[in-house]
Amino acid sequence: MAEVEADEQREDIRRWRPVARSRTYELVIDRVEEQIVTGQLRVGDRLPAERDLAQMLSVSRAAVREAFRALEAQGVLRMSVGTGPDSGTTVAALPSEALKRLLRLHVALANFPAQDVVEARVMLERQSARNAAERATAADLKEMRELLAAMDDADCDRVQFNELDTDFHLAIAEAGGNRLIADMTIAVRESMRLPLLEGFQALGDSWRSAAERLRREHQSIYDALETGDGATAQQHMENHIRGFWASVRER
Amino acid sequence: MAEVEADEQREDIRRWRPVARSRTYELVIDRVEEQIVTGQLRVGDRLPAERDLAQMLSVSRAAVREAFRALEAQGVLRMSVGTGPDSGTTVAALPSEALKRLLRLHVALANFPAQDVVEARVMLERQSARNAAERATAADLKEMRELLAAMDDADCDRVQFNELDTDFHLAIAEAGGNRLIADMTIAVRESMRLPLLEGFQALGDSWRSAAERLRREHQSIYDALETGDGATAQQHMENHIRGFWASVRER
Repeated sequence: MAEVEADEQREDIRRWRPVARSRTYELVIDRVEEQIVTGQLRVGDRLPAERDLAQMLSVSRAAVREAFRALEAQGVLRMSVGTGPDSGTTVAALPSEALKRLLRLHVALANFPAQDVVEARVMLERQSARNAAERATAADLKEMRELLAAMDDADCDRVQFNELDTDFHLAIAEAGGNRLIADMTIAVRESMRLPLLEGFQALGDSWRSAAERLRREHQSIYDALETGDGATAQQHMENHIRGFWASVRER
Repeated sequence: MAEVEADEQREDIRRWRPVARSRTYELVIDRVEEQIVTGQLRVGDRLPAERDLAQMLSVSRAAVREAFRALEAQGVLRMSVGTGPDSGTTVAALPSEALKRLLRLHVALANFPAQDVVEARVMLERQSARNAAERATAADLKEMRELLAAMDDADCDRVQFNELDTDFHLAIAEAGGNRLIADMTIAVRESMRLPLLEGFQALGDSWRSAAERLRREHQSIYDALETGDGATAQQHMENHIRGFWASVRER
């Protein structure tokens, strides 16, 4: 179904624009991904040699090579030369960093309506706050306190504040202990780094009072996390995200 | 920070295994992504010509070409030949399909603990159900009823049931009307297609009674959506997801 749609889309592209040098490698990528999503290929499995796969798929070796390179760049495949047991092209156990990188990039490019991104952030960060209230360690809480202290510094400018603010939200997501939710939260939050900084800049002279309000809100989130009160933590988090968004929109 | 970690990771790989033919193109990819995430490059912007970019980054043209190809395969860049205003390499407005595809692939490969995936599903599908209760159109509800009717069919086997079940959850996510949340929900749910089918298979003879229970749960979710009762819809959704997971684990 998705493949049919993708084919139709490619047909549309072919109909209206000059044909690029080659798109065969995209079909090879589709085949590899299909095998992974259906569980035919699992982490550590070795793919057929370039030459053999080219023959099986009736495509050129160059197309297979391009597809492998593209999948390697996404972190899906690992290619090694040599003759050891790890040589050849194998399916990689993706590092969490790869998922975050891709999701962040895609959120930055997909042009989702701002309201949708705020709603997604509220959902993700409420869950992160709830989990962090249950699971945050003493070390997690210490890191958060240090970030709050740095944001209290009178010399902290908008750019630094934005970085520390991002790190505070990331620390809560990490403390929540659910890797998949943390990755999604961090990716969506990081894609907001620039729009939020633009929001800070647009505040002009009222930046000082806005920062004061954000500091109070961060502290109230932190206090709820420290006492393990998940319900309060997630409510403060939601008010914090919606409040800042509303104040930027009103201007 | 993320770049430093990625570099360290690459260093580790280099230390312990034979060096692959080239990794320079990965550095080119990093540079392009950095420009996108920081907003220096926006959708529709044209990248420098291969030759110029190679010179600016002090890398070979081949490395730039490989990087462009890999980013094109991810849907991030669009490459067109010719001389029109759209020719050259431009930043693409990513189709939603690209994000879903990548996230699905990554969830399938990242080996998140099953418990984390269930928690993420509960969060995402609770939000989808709540949004769908508010926003589902008559056409959305009709589609859901048709899927439920197809699952009621006595001839419906496990494989068909699993497909229809997936489609029912996807229809609710789509009806929620938040593109970003729907994309994340669909990607995570689709990554569960195979494990869920394995769960169905493992049920053996008790498949019939398990399917009966799933049908009742689907109906109760649908009824809440139809009456616009978001709180009930999301509670039924959570019970449904956790219940099936618990029944598979108990075996």
